Amino acid sequence: MTPRADTPITLPLRPDLAGEVPYGAPQIDVPHLLNVNENPYPPGPQVVATLAEYVSAAASTLNRYPDRDFPALRSDLADYLAQESGVRVAPEQVWAANGSNEVMLHLMQAFGGPGRTALSFAPTYSMYPEYARDTHTRWVAGRREEDFTLDVDVAVATLREHTPSIVILTSPNNPTGTAMPFSTIEAVCEAALELDVDGSPAVVVVDEAYAEFRRAGVPSALELLERYPNLAVSRTMSKAFALAGARVGYLAGSTDLVDALRIVRLPYHLSAVTQATARAALAHAPALLAQVDSLRTERDATVAWLRAQTLDGRPLQAAESDSNFVLFGTFDDRHAVWQGLLDRGVLIRETGPEGWLRVSIGTPQDMIAFKDALVEVAGL
Amino acid sequence: MTPRADTPITLPLRPDLAGEVPYGAPQIDVPHLLNVNENPYPPGPQVVATLAEYVSAAASTLNRYPDRDFPALRSDLADYLAQESGVRVAPEQVWAANGSNEVMLHLMQAFGGPGRTALSFAPTYSMYPEYARDTHTRWVAGRREEDFTLDVDVAVATLREHTPSIVILTSPNNPTGTAMPFSTIEAVCEAALELDVDGSPAVVVVDEAYAEFRRAGVPSALELLERYPNLAVSRTMSKAFALAGARVGYLAGSTDLVDALRIVRLPYHLSAVTQATARAALAHAPALLAQVDSLRTERDATVAWLRAQTLDGRPLQAAESDSNFVLFGTFDDRHAVWQGLLDRGVLIRETGPEGWLRVSIGTPQDMIAFKDALVEVAGL
Repeated sequence: MTPRADTPITLPLRPDLAGEVPYGAPQIDVPHLLNVNENPYPPGPQVVATLAEYVSAAASTLNRYPDRDFPALRSDLADYLAQESGVRVAPEQVWAANGSNEVMLHLMQAFGGPGRTALSFAPTYSMYPEYARDTHTRWVAGRREEDFTLDVDVAVATLREHTPSIVILTSPNNPTGTAMPFSTIEAVCEAALELDVDGSPAVVVVDEAYAEFRRAGVPSALELLERYPNLAVSRTMSKAFALAGARVGYLAGSTDLVDALRIVRLPYHLSAVTQATARAALAHAPALLAQVDSLRTERDATVAWLRAQTLDGRPLQAAESDSNFVLFGTFDDRHAVWQGLLDRGVLIRETGPEGWLRVSIGTPQDMIAFKDALVEVAGL
Repeated sequence: MTPRADTPITLPLRPDLAGEVPYGAPQIDVPHLLNVNENPYPPGPQVVATLAEYVSAAASTLNRYPDRDFPALRSDLADYLAQESGVRVAPEQVWAANGSNEVMLHLMQAFGGPGRTALSFAPTYSMYPEYARDTHTRWVAGRREEDFTLDVDVAVATLREHTPSIVILTSPNNPTGTAMPFSTIEAVCEAALELDVDGSPAVVVVDEAYAEFRRAGVPSALELLERYPNLAVSRTMSKAFALAGARVGYLAGSTDLVDALRIVRLPYHLSAVTQATARAALAHAPALLAQVDSLRTERDATVAWLRAQTLDGRPLQAAESDSNFVLFGTFDDRHAVWQGLLDRGVLIRETGPEGWLRVSIGTPQDMIAFKDALVEVAGL
């Protein structure tokens, strides 16, 4: 046998991955982290105490595999959704995974794949094409209008043109922040029902990662579940529950849809520790959601402040936001603005259409730092 | 809009998933759980205390996304591997995910896919074909000999016949329990280097989920990493670390190989809580591994006892085991034996070649119950 240590070899990386780099925003340690739409408020002492208690209880049987179907967590999530939106679904209609990105992966694994198409409407969340790539699903980006809304006729025509098996509607949308009118979601669900994907209609996924931050009067697509068995509404505990580090995403849909995801999930995908952590946070839902109210207030104030600024003689633009971030611009050299803010300890995100920037809503102190830095850097 | 609630529809499930059912052994609550090769010893009070401490510390920043590259955990895992096997790898050569099944999924996503083939040698772990199915990778099951060993010439010929991009060697093998001689692994790595998969050699994955249970003198494939840059050795914390509920699998390989997995992993796939849990258990590695010694003793005693039994005038067979389970048989009606044991509170696994059954090594009390029940049910 010949030692090979000094013989450079290549590895059989899938050809379509050649040159790809791992996804991810820069993880930089600066005072004001406003780049990945995290909740700025860490779990309080009571949440931490409950979490330690639940995890310790789970720890005593960690030698055993977790319950593959996590009925207790699904029941807690169903209860929470009922409380948050008024829509009651059965625990069997709830699915959860390690972040809503794993939920989305399960959807693509079950309903996408070679020969299948997933459709969303750009500008939108930049990870969707990666889920498609990783499941060999063709990716089509339909278009939004100049004001980031979705034209219903354009959307329906795009469905008919591409016959996707999965349509992703992001509401509130990321990175633009705006929720979608109910009528648009209804029209897309109707059009999806009329499609013929190997004899079935298309699945519509409404990604409501930021739903808890929506403005008063904006409904959740959960209300449409009863009418559309081809609809799934995904949520996350990363944002409103301030639990990004725990990686818990979930969705509600028909039991048939959930059962399809159970086929492709890795067995025991959701650890006993993750189940315990999620349940601990859900036990404190009212306290955690109270913080959402203050973030919404801060968000509205940020939008108003941005719109009151003048850049080169024109008012600065800020997109309507139902989420915990604001897309604003435009700047001739957005990278310079991003870098200038970073130099002042404020990390925001260079994303969205050319010229725009996205800032997550942080604490009042974070937002003061952001505004001060922006005034200085952009010369407002 | 027409309400559709009472209109049954189908969903666009991928055609190759039609009729598939979710993978998983029955989760039945009986006194003696000897069916999924769990460690029977729950984490002790000291481990639970450390775990609560680490998780509480992590909880205070759970509003932030976890470190995508978990350098601290990778460093701890590298230290542990050095201690366990004498082989020192750099932290950058270590990768981890939610269970070794997610590690395997990452491998198939990076190196498999449409037009690619994954090869293993049956009888072996029943999940591999599902990872292949879920990544659209063609699955080929080569053959083992009657005594469950791998004939090197057969193995090399199978590689040359099918040109897989991924070869999985399971050592110790599941469900047969036996480790593979070093020379076999070397020969397969050599043959894999000679293959041409889109201009690259094949990747060889040695699945060492049960490595810590191997008998004295049996080496780990980690020793071959320096010679074969196309080799990856996967491990899990589910078995020796008694941490099945926490879902932590990992591998060691070249940095190039690890970097390929980083492309396809979902961002933030490993939660801060999971990272903290794994590090807490690793801090107690010596104590946890002391239990491995007693399980190995119990395993050897179980093999000896089974072989001393007579069934219908012939000695009962038990496969050589380097793991925490034993494959034994054969029975004309293995399902009846399995059911008889279950009726007596002993849950084992109906798996492996026709006529064989697999029992996990439990506590001494578990094994007494198993032996008593087997004598009664099989009429030994």
